[in-house]
Amino acid sequence: MLVLRSSPASPFGRKVKIAAHHLGLMDRIDIVAADTADPNEVLRQQNPLGKIPALILEDGTVLYDSRVIVEYLDHLAGGAKIIPADAATRYPVLAAQALADGIADAALLQVYESRWRDPAQQSVKWTTHQQGKVDRGLAAAEAHAFHGAVHVGSIALACALGYLDLRFEGAWRATHPRLVAFLDDFAARVPSFELTRFPS
Amino acid sequence: MLVLRSSPASPFGRKVKIAAHHLGLMDRIDIVAADTADPNEVLRQQNPLGKIPALILEDGTVLYDSRVIVEYLDHLAGGAKIIPADAATRYPVLAAQALADGIADAALLQVYESRWRDPAQQSVKWTTHQQGKVDRGLAAAEAHAFHGAVHVGSIALACALGYLDLRFEGAWRATHPRLVAFLDDFAARVPSFELTRFPS
Repeated sequence: MLVLRSSPASPFGRKVKIAAHHLGLMDRIDIVAADTADPNEVLRQQNPLGKIPALILEDGTVLYDSRVIVEYLDHLAGGAKIIPADAATRYPVLAAQALADGIADAALLQVYESRWRDPAQQSVKWTTHQQGKVDRGLAAAEAHAFHGAVHVGSIALACALGYLDLRFEGAWRATHPRLVAFLDDFAARVPSFELTRFPS
Repeated sequence: MLVLRSSPASPFGRKVKIAAHHLGLMDRIDIVAADTADPNEVLRQQNPLGKIPALILEDGTVLYDSRVIVEYLDHLAGGAKIIPADAATRYPVLAAQALADGIADAALLQVYESRWRDPAQQSVKWTTHQQGKVDRGLAAAEAHAFHGAVHVGSIALACALGYLDLRFEGAWRATHPRLVAFLDDFAARVPSFELTRFPS
C-alpha cells in the first residue's frame, strides 16, 4: 500500500485525494492524518519540510510535494490521464495548476498570519499583498474558466476555490460567476470533490 | 524569442537560467528584469501571482512557476536532459527538486520577514519554524548528497545553497561538508552556476 500523509483541510492534500479517486487508485492508498504543527510528528522525518501532502511508496521513498505526487499517480494509472502528454496542452495545464496552487498558497499565508502570530505581529501590508495574489489569480481564472476537462489544472482550481469557501466564507463567489459555474460543473462530474470536502 | 522575467537574486530564477544555459537555450531567451514589489509592474499581468520567474512564449502564453519552466525548457531541448524519463529516477529527482525549492522558500520567508514588516511585527516563532525547514532539509540533502548528475534536483539544490550563501552568509557550510563538496563539484562542471551568481 501507498501511505498518504495529509490533513482534511489541506487544499493540496485534497488535490492529491481527488486525483487518486479520479484515477481509480484509492484502494491502493492508506491515508494517515498528519499534524504539521507538532514538532514530534514523524512527518518531519518523512518530509524534512514538514509539509503535507507526502506520499510514502512501498520501498520507503517519500514523494512530495502535491505536484510531484499527482504526476506519480497519473503515471501509476497509465499516464496522460490528468496531465496531458502533448506539449501544446501540457505546459498550459501545468501553469494553470501553478496558478491555482499559488492562489491557495497566498490564502494559506493569510490563515497562518493569525495562526502563528499575536495580533500585534500581524501585518496588514503582508496580508494585503497576499490577497492581491488571490484577487489577480481569481480574475485570471475567471477570464479563462474552462469546463469539461478534468486535469491537474481544473482539480487544483477546484481545491483552491474550496479552500476559499472553507476559510474565507466563499467571498469570491459574488464577483466570479464563471468560476461558480466552473465549480458547480466540476463537482457534478467529479464526485470525489464532495467526498473530500472538509472535515472528511 | 522567449522572454524570461526574473531578478538576479532569485534562487528560482537562477534555477531556470542554469537550466537554459545547460540545455544550450540561452540564445533563444531574452531576460527582462522584474520588480516583484512594484504594483505597476507588468509582471502582475503576465503572472497574476506577481512571482518570478515567468517565461513568455512567442504566442503570448506565460509559463510559471520555475518547475513548469524547467520542464518546458527540457522539452524544447529534446526531453529527458535534466528531468529523467524513467519513473524509477524521475520521481525521486522531482522530489529532490521539491526539497531544494522548499529550502529556498523557507529561507525567502525569513528574508521577507524583515523586508515586509516593522521590527515589532516580526515573529521569532515564525522564523524559527521556517529555519527548522531549512535545517531539516539541509540535513536530508547532506545525507543523500549526490555527485555527478546534473538534473533539476541538483540544479535546484545548488541554487538553494547559493541563496543561503547570499542571504545567510553561508552559515550552512560549517556543518554540511558533503554539501560543500557537492556545490564545489557542481560549480566545476556547470559553468553557468558562476555565470548566474548575484549580481549577474
